[in-house]
Amino acid sequence: MKALKLKHPAQEVTGTFRLENLGPSFFEAAPAENPLLDVFIAGIGTVGSELLRQLEPGGPLSEDFHLIGFCNSKLALIHEEGVQQASFVNRISGQRPVTPTRWPSIVAQLIRHREKSGRGLLFVDATGSREVALLYLRLLNAGVHVVTPSKIANTMPQHFFDQLVAPRENGALFRYEAAAGAGLPIVNTISTMVQNGDTVLRISGVLSGTMTYLFGELEKGVPFSEAVRKAYDEGYTEPDPRDDLSGEDVARKCLILARTAGIRMERDAFTAEDQTPEDLRHAPLGAFFDGLSAYDELWKKRVEEARAEGKVLRYVGTITPEKIEVGVRAVPAESPIGTLRGADNLISIRSRYYQRSPVTIQGPGAGSEVTAQGVLADMRRIADQLSRNTATGS
Amino acid sequence: MKALKLKHPAQEVTGTFRLENLGPSFFEAAPAENPLLDVFIAGIGTVGSELLRQLEPGGPLSEDFHLIGFCNSKLALIHEEGVQQASFVNRISGQRPVTPTRWPSIVAQLIRHREKSGRGLLFVDATGSREVALLYLRLLNAGVHVVTPSKIANTMPQHFFDQLVAPRENGALFRYEAAAGAGLPIVNTISTMVQNGDTVLRISGVLSGTMTYLFGELEKGVPFSEAVRKAYDEGYTEPDPRDDLSGEDVARKCLILARTAGIRMERDAFTAEDQTPEDLRHAPLGAFFDGLSAYDELWKKRVEEARAEGKVLRYVGTITPEKIEVGVRAVPAESPIGTLRGADNLISIRSRYYQRSPVTIQGPGAGSEVTAQGVLADMRRIADQLSRNTATGS
Repeated sequence: MKALKLKHPAQEVTGTFRLENLGPSFFEAAPAENPLLDVFIAGIGTVGSELLRQLEPGGPLSEDFHLIGFCNSKLALIHEEGVQQASFVNRISGQRPVTPTRWPSIVAQLIRHREKSGRGLLFVDATGSREVALLYLRLLNAGVHVVTPSKIANTMPQHFFDQLVAPRENGALFRYEAAAGAGLPIVNTISTMVQNGDTVLRISGVLSGTMTYLFGELEKGVPFSEAVRKAYDEGYTEPDPRDDLSGEDVARKCLILARTAGIRMERDAFTAEDQTPEDLRHAPLGAFFDGLSAYDELWKKRVEEARAEGKVLRYVGTITPEKIEVGVRAVPAESPIGTLRGADNLISIRSRYYQRSPVTIQGPGAGSEVTAQGVLADMRRIADQLSRNTATGS
Repeated sequence: MKALKLKHPAQEVTGTFRLENLGPSFFEAAPAENPLLDVFIAGIGTVGSELLRQLEPGGPLSEDFHLIGFCNSKLALIHEEGVQQASFVNRISGQRPVTPTRWPSIVAQLIRHREKSGRGLLFVDATGSREVALLYLRLLNAGVHVVTPSKIANTMPQHFFDQLVAPRENGALFRYEAAAGAGLPIVNTISTMVQNGDTVLRISGVLSGTMTYLFGELEKGVPFSEAVRKAYDEGYTEPDPRDDLSGEDVARKCLILARTAGIRMERDAFTAEDQTPEDLRHAPLGAFFDGLSAYDELWKKRVEEARAEGKVLRYVGTITPEKIEVGVRAVPAESPIGTLRGADNLISIRSRYYQRSPVTIQGPGAGSEVTAQGVLADMRRIADQLSRNTATGS
């Protein structure tokens, strides 16, 4: 999905922070007295800035989560006493407490902060940067929790994933609910099953709202070339629609769900059916759009063939302990997947205990607000595990 | 739902424990070395005995949860060192380490155990007893966690519910995921939304598998009287089917979900449409069945009227911040609720962040295995919050 238009001032960061645009609450609200966790947000694009908005000082979540900094790819702001203090300093002295973004030094600074403060610290990676993903282990090994909606780290080789999720003496946790299905409780449902002695047998469904939107247009009779163009224009696709058509996004989500279910697998063990015509895969974007109409007839035929059988096309992922399959399938028009509309996702999980009738979860699988909610669900779960009053008797 | 046939030996408890029937693992497996929580299970009927089975010593969950006892309404077994030790003593000496079940003294004994052991202790109430529900506060105030699939305590007056879920200095937690939708992650999804600053606007769906089964039979042309009889014979109803037809079960589940969403409401603030013919509400069970056929025509007409509009009947609950409505509704046959089959539940949650497209969760809403999984999800969540290694730096 292309970045949606943001209402939050953080969108205006264009290489320099405008602290004065963070909204009055960032200056005026009293800082939380006893927050559960310090939080740093890396990346303030669509999801990161929405998360900033939901964590607004003085808001209901600021009691629990204390924002000590954030950054984009250019500039970083970290302040021991929180961004409110930084904003205050800025207003009084005009001094901008920002530094150029250098990831290794940000990580080092955060680790020092955590050691000094003695409080829990949580690093949210909303960047989509491979360089940042490769720093997770350093953070985790130093006791800093990591939460991300990104699919980069958790689709690296299995042994890397194993290290990310391994239990640690220092208690640091890695969580990634929003990496598949945005805010829908899919990752958490699967991991709870596995933890509680259930065995996942089959996960299947639709994990790409973009493709569902596209097929919905084709069903209405819109030619393929126009449907792709329309999805692009309306912000339903990645900046290059071929990143959706390739199925790579769905393949990664499937790999993440498989690993969450305890199925050990590498990304190169299965292929995704690429829906980009072969001759257009490496063309410039303009030429790609121009070339699409040559395939309108082919897609029209596919849609009509499915319809003749009472079916519709959907981009479906299926995970079993043996294999992952990702591609276009003709499904009954009246089935739950067939009736999916808009950008909804739908995932069915069959397990030993849910064998006759699966657990099915449906809802929006993209969008900044719900993705931020998925990140917050992870943050909350980690904060819960650190709650200071416990009934252990210790 | 009537108790299903159990494969587990604990079903054979008929006023006296047969420890020798607990299965070899209860004798032979080594006790967990460092469990997260001690666990006591009150009630070993359908759900309680399935939970016993899933917690079997030597199994994957026994590492985390250490069973120190269980009871039915007649006899109780509590042993400081765990039921394995009790079984061992029994085998060696023939001494039965059981006592008659007296709830206040069981509670007192558990509180003493928790104080002495210094470990976390979790009380699972699988009894459905009002007397037990009224003891939760005593347990919680003494630092003992309470988890239940029962709908008794959480549908008592709002001020009682408030006390159950209030944060406690001693960290004791009350959780009840399985009280609505069995193992489906409905309660947890709603409470996570509320905790993370979202506002629930509307919850609606089907929370009674029994009623869906019944309407499914009516759609096939089975007369009402026969359909009720069949549901009863096949174990889909409560021992008295009027407990399903009254809608009280659905009403209570709706009240629980409403309160979880932060909506303060009392049970007497709304009514459930009772589907039991008025003249049969107080009749003996036999007379009730005999009298039903007088209403076959009426139900046939209701079903046909709905069908003429392309609809089917479903027993639907709808919750908004203002009110709860529970009753029979004609819904489009092709809608998600209309296509529900078997004993599945389906719940849609609309909120501020899920306004255009709700989160929908579907799956089996009854059954001992999945209900036990719901109880375990709560137990796991509590255990997580007590994990001993934390990254708080303290």
